[in-house]
Amino acid sequence: MNIVIVGLGNIGGSFALSLRENAREHTVYAIDVDEDTLEHAEHEGIIRQGFTDPEKIIPRADLIIFSVYPLILKSLVEKYIPLLKENVILTDVTGVKRSIIGQIEPLLPESADFVFGHPMAGRENRGLKYSSAEVFKGANYLFTLTDRNRDDNVELMTSLIKRMGFKNVSSVTPEFHDDVIGFTSQLTHVIALSLINSDDVERNTKQYTGDSYRDLTRITNINENLWPELFVMNKDYLIDHIDRFKSQMDLLKDAIETEDVETMQEMMVEARRRYHDLHNLEMPESE
Amino acid sequence: MNIVIVGLGNIGGSFALSLRENAREHTVYAIDVDEDTLEHAEHEGIIRQGFTDPEKIIPRADLIIFSVYPLILKSLVEKYIPLLKENVILTDVTGVKRSIIGQIEPLLPESADFVFGHPMAGRENRGLKYSSAEVFKGANYLFTLTDRNRDDNVELMTSLIKRMGFKNVSSVTPEFHDDVIGFTSQLTHVIALSLINSDDVERNTKQYTGDSYRDLTRITNINENLWPELFVMNKDYLIDHIDRFKSQMDLLKDAIETEDVETMQEMMVEARRRYHDLHNLEMPESE
Repeated sequence: MNIVIVGLGNIGGSFALSLRENAREHTVYAIDVDEDTLEHAEHEGIIRQGFTDPEKIIPRADLIIFSVYPLILKSLVEKYIPLLKENVILTDVTGVKRSIIGQIEPLLPESADFVFGHPMAGRENRGLKYSSAEVFKGANYLFTLTDRNRDDNVELMTSLIKRMGFKNVSSVTPEFHDDVIGFTSQLTHVIALSLINSDDVERNTKQYTGDSYRDLTRITNINENLWPELFVMNKDYLIDHIDRFKSQMDLLKDAIETEDVETMQEMMVEARRRYHDLHNLEMPESE
Repeated sequence: MNIVIVGLGNIGGSFALSLRENAREHTVYAIDVDEDTLEHAEHEGIIRQGFTDPEKIIPRADLIIFSVYPLILKSLVEKYIPLLKENVILTDVTGVKRSIIGQIEPLLPESADFVFGHPMAGRENRGLKYSSAEVFKGANYLFTLTDRNRDDNVELMTSLIKRMGFKNVSSVTPEFHDDVIGFTSQLTHVIALSLINSDDVERNTKQYTGDSYRDLTRITNINENLWPELFVMNKDYLIDHIDRFKSQMDLLKDAIETEDVETMQEMMVEARRRYHDLHNLEMPESE
């Protein structure tokens, strides 16, 4: 296949590197606005050839991987539609799905199959120089299927993604995706931002941190040009998760205030049970 | 010096291993209730000798390191007081200080100097088998000084702790300690517990997690016999930090609800500035 990666940033670059490592029978091209990035990627053998002009390569593409900000995805797809090869497969890496799918599906010609996807291996550092085939290994991948998708294309994409080292490759509805991502990814970012911004900067806190504070704030090196739109596109689910989290926190706060040690212990035992389940570990009987 | 570690669990064991690696001129003994642990530690050369009976070793101790649960610390100190050598130094590893110091200082004989300390390198796994000299390397250490402490003893302890690989060794007031630890350690545990317990267990969330969820829940494998008492002993500061965090979260939630992208971006830029400061990184001008 001719694979064209649109947007050779961190994730797009990681796709290119991972395809080179795990699926050498395909030829990988890239489209980007930055000529230096394309030249560097060609020179390093990360891609076969780079283009700033989609007309020169989109007509030959069998698979197009859009690795761009959600806000520009729709306009790019619109621009590429007249250029698409018959039976082309398209995919994306966007972190929210319902809104994106609603914008894009009505535009698509009959034979073009957009298999919407989400590699759960985002990194906060931007640009090709932070790309790596390693970040995909063991990570989760979500496809959000719609009635338009053809089974053989979904199978092809699933198999390709698995070869790249992803562990759990699941197909879910766009609604389920946005619900669960609102919890595992968006809520966690809301929490981390709120934590680091509630620090008293006069205190020079960094001299007094342990691993826990560094763990909980690691994701605050956040891309402010991407995340607000993700939050807004998913605000119904996200607000709901924030409220559920706050309710849990209020239960624990009440237990602390009333010195209700037994309730705190129950919450901690429940949390440990969930921790062990998350990591596929056996919970010790007693310690 | 003869150093006696009281409580050969994860932290006590890490002290023994680190002293063996970094301060071989001292002789390290241990007191524990578990004879198997002591025998194993002797056999592995982690300690010179282990005792279940304090009378056999406390009278020869120049430095006693209490690595035990806060609730039993006071009764142990009471028991050891008649056995203490003249001019002995004592220290602890407790995560909250005002309450502990208030309980213990009044008990001490004139010549005994308790230099209260807190290695910020806790690990959730319990027991000697998880001990390691490595966990102390690069970690922060806090001493909470009182009017009773002698300068030469504080200097001796600081120097010993630095040799063990700790990076920032600070001396602060018990009040400042409890305030900052309420934020960097206790609030983060409250958040992590509330996050994992607000998960919908029907969803089988683990198939859909990225690094962020695993980062934010890593500390939920929590010791339910230790943490409730730490929370209770520090509840004034902790509740205050929970409330400040909730206020920040509400600001962000409002911005999401009203789709106020500009405010979200400002919060994210501020968070990134703090992230870069925390990790001593230069903030890129623009990306």
